[in-house]
Amino acid sequence: MVLGAGFGGLAFVKAFPRDLARITVVDRTNHHLFQPLLYQVATAGLSAPDIAEPIRALVRKRPDVTVLMGTVTDADFERRTLTVDGRPSAFDLLVLAVGNRTSYFGNRSWAAFASGLKTIDDAIRIRRSVLHAFERAEVVDDDREREKLLTVAVVGGGPTGVEMAGALAELQRRVLARDFRRARLRSGRVVLVEASDRLLSPFPEKLSRRALEQLRSLGVQVLLGQRVEDVRDGELDLGETVIRAANIVWSAGVTTTDLVHDLPLRKDRGGRIEVAPDLSVPDHDGIYALGDAVVLRDAAGVSVPAIAPAAMQMGRHVAAECARRIRERDTTYGNGRPFVYRDKGYMATVGRSRAVARIGRLRFSGFTAWILWLTVHLAFLAGFENKLSVFVKWIFSYVFYRRGARVIHGIPDPSTRDGVPACETASRHSANQDST
Amino acid sequence: MVLGAGFGGLAFVKAFPRDLARITVVDRTNHHLFQPLLYQVATAGLSAPDIAEPIRALVRKRPDVTVLMGTVTDADFERRTLTVDGRPSAFDLLVLAVGNRTSYFGNRSWAAFASGLKTIDDAIRIRRSVLHAFERAEVVDDDREREKLLTVAVVGGGPTGVEMAGALAELQRRVLARDFRRARLRSGRVVLVEASDRLLSPFPEKLSRRALEQLRSLGVQVLLGQRVEDVRDGELDLGETVIRAANIVWSAGVTTTDLVHDLPLRKDRGGRIEVAPDLSVPDHDGIYALGDAVVLRDAAGVSVPAIAPAAMQMGRHVAAECARRIRERDTTYGNGRPFVYRDKGYMATVGRSRAVARIGRLRFSGFTAWILWLTVHLAFLAGFENKLSVFVKWIFSYVFYRRGARVIHGIPDPSTRDGVPACETASRHSANQDST
Repeated sequence: MVLGAGFGGLAFVKAFPRDLARITVVDRTNHHLFQPLLYQVATAGLSAPDIAEPIRALVRKRPDVTVLMGTVTDADFERRTLTVDGRPSAFDLLVLAVGNRTSYFGNRSWAAFASGLKTIDDAIRIRRSVLHAFERAEVVDDDREREKLLTVAVVGGGPTGVEMAGALAELQRRVLARDFRRARLRSGRVVLVEASDRLLSPFPEKLSRRALEQLRSLGVQVLLGQRVEDVRDGELDLGETVIRAANIVWSAGVTTTDLVHDLPLRKDRGGRIEVAPDLSVPDHDGIYALGDAVVLRDAAGVSVPAIAPAAMQMGRHVAAECARRIRERDTTYGNGRPFVYRDKGYMATVGRSRAVARIGRLRFSGFTAWILWLTVHLAFLAGFENKLSVFVKWIFSYVFYRRGARVIHGIPDPSTRDGVPACETASRHSANQDST
Repeated sequence: MVLGAGFGGLAFVKAFPRDLARITVVDRTNHHLFQPLLYQVATAGLSAPDIAEPIRALVRKRPDVTVLMGTVTDADFERRTLTVDGRPSAFDLLVLAVGNRTSYFGNRSWAAFASGLKTIDDAIRIRRSVLHAFERAEVVDDDREREKLLTVAVVGGGPTGVEMAGALAELQRRVLARDFRRARLRSGRVVLVEASDRLLSPFPEKLSRRALEQLRSLGVQVLLGQRVEDVRDGELDLGETVIRAANIVWSAGVTTTDLVHDLPLRKDRGGRIEVAPDLSVPDHDGIYALGDAVVLRDAAGVSVPAIAPAAMQMGRHVAAECARRIRERDTTYGNGRPFVYRDKGYMATVGRSRAVARIGRLRFSGFTAWILWLTVHLAFLAGFENKLSVFVKWIFSYVFYRRGARVIHGIPDPSTRDGVPACETASRHSANQDST
């Protein structure tokens, strides 16, 4: 049984030999999400279905795979039973590939004022709220209020924060500016706040500086070494200064899902699951964990990063391990082949013709890195029937500076704040299994 | 000032001479909706942004046009002032192009159990609810419950009802059937209920019979001459029989928007605005009305139908009338050039290679009609940058029987019914200006 149909869970299923066992994939949603492009849905470049493919369609040709859409409410490792939406479901082997969720460092109240970016609903909520704020800026009379409506703050200078800030600046200053008459969108602000002294900390320092230059050339105001003290409605409190912003996007941290939090597993301080070198979970025979939810130094001593390629490599590794175990009827655990991470590099796009990339020892920035980014992401969308549609949209937005998904729907209820209906508040376990 | 950016309002703006006057377009949403394809969003063939284009983008090259996103809460014809979200806005000439909204024949409570199909939110709600019901059918143990989850009832045998029923049958029996393991989607039902004795009443009788045959060949159960007595949660009561269906789609009637309802205008029994032959509103100088919201026999005695081409013709007519009036400083009303409807025909698609069309005196059905339908709809999507993306998706779904937008998002709150969050309940004036 596989929990989570993100990059890791799906790689497991694809790599697991056909008809060797019955596989059940459980996910809270009905789709595999291409999360690296989620920021483009949030900034109206792509539509949600462009980057989401039904899990059932992805495993259509595998009659040995069953897909269950549901939320895991309980897991009993001793009885080897999972409870999905109240229904018990037995397993022999379990693969935890549940990803993680947005973390507000213990300040859960901030979630109401700063949206994370982990799910399609997050992306659509941000898109609606940002576009709606600009629409209100067009009619409002008060200058101070208009300034606030035209300001977007992004917290966290990792890849998501950088990509989000760059895309927001382009949306505001290039794409939308020509369409508004009264609100001067070019005078709007995108502020990126990072607590450490540089952006993109996993990248080489030179590329961090390049990303900073590229963001600034787009008009993004980058604040380094600034900690968030408090988040209030439309206000980001940095202690000495307070940024007034109608929209605040939170990409500053992730933590374990509630399900993992409740499970009796060894975890590090960040709540990530500690696994044996073969990715099995210590003290629990036949349970594996992989992807963003685990913390691991691989056999070569490399700390495995929480990115899609690493999750996919782990998924394939666990598939090979489980298959071997079943074939050899091996029931002793913890002694499997150790996982070795093959580092292929990192990349992040900042905007049109702007990106940074490290591939092996090579470093790229600017147009070359951007073309690399486009190529790699289109290649990885393979299996997505929407690849061609995404390609067409990218060409259009490059040539015409357009964004095809500028649709405000899910009309905000006036009784709630800035377009976030009260009923969107996440319930207890609902953040589980958001595959990464 | 133009109220509503549907086909009629937009045609007015496009036809009105540039820089002759300042034009303000007010719409409750930020987009012009290509409503004839809305059923494809509801059945996961297209994504919402494919058929919605920002109004601002559509009038980008017209500096004489201002766009306001907002809800009209009051209109004072004497003082020539409109109140948009609490802000007064003055006008000299007013064009009412507000369309209409779903009507439950006075049974407003039915709205909670049977979704209309007029807005993007309607379409996404239906998509989510139908796909979610099928997912639940995959896990449920009770046969009776599974049968209900796999049943969709469509009320109303007009073009929307016919297109919706055909697309649902294809989605269930062809596209999804191969992806589900336990729920036998081929045994699922799509029921189309029509009160009169034939489908597509504006079409010639022969084409109505063809559409009926085509729907039945797709497996749709068509019930003619059946009136809806009551709609309850998951139950469509037809008096003698009760259809148990987890999803009920309502396309049986439309009525005037709440705004039009409140305005001091002459209306027919259905609440549609009665207009003079030149489309001006009697007794109110400088007010015009057009599109689905009006009732009119044109100068040739033809009753003008509530379809997009008629609304567009009326929009162009009113634009010419208003421009003439401004140029000639004509301030006497009701004596303008009468509107004459040019009937170009009708078409409705039933499914893959199935459609009916009347063009002038020519009648088509089957594959020829379907190709005509595709061509006309692609041509009318012109101006939409997403035309190519729609075309690509159609090719894919034709060749591979795929639906690219099978994404369930907006996770239902367990405290509400079948995926319709309580906060989606329409508020007082919120159905206004849903352009048709």
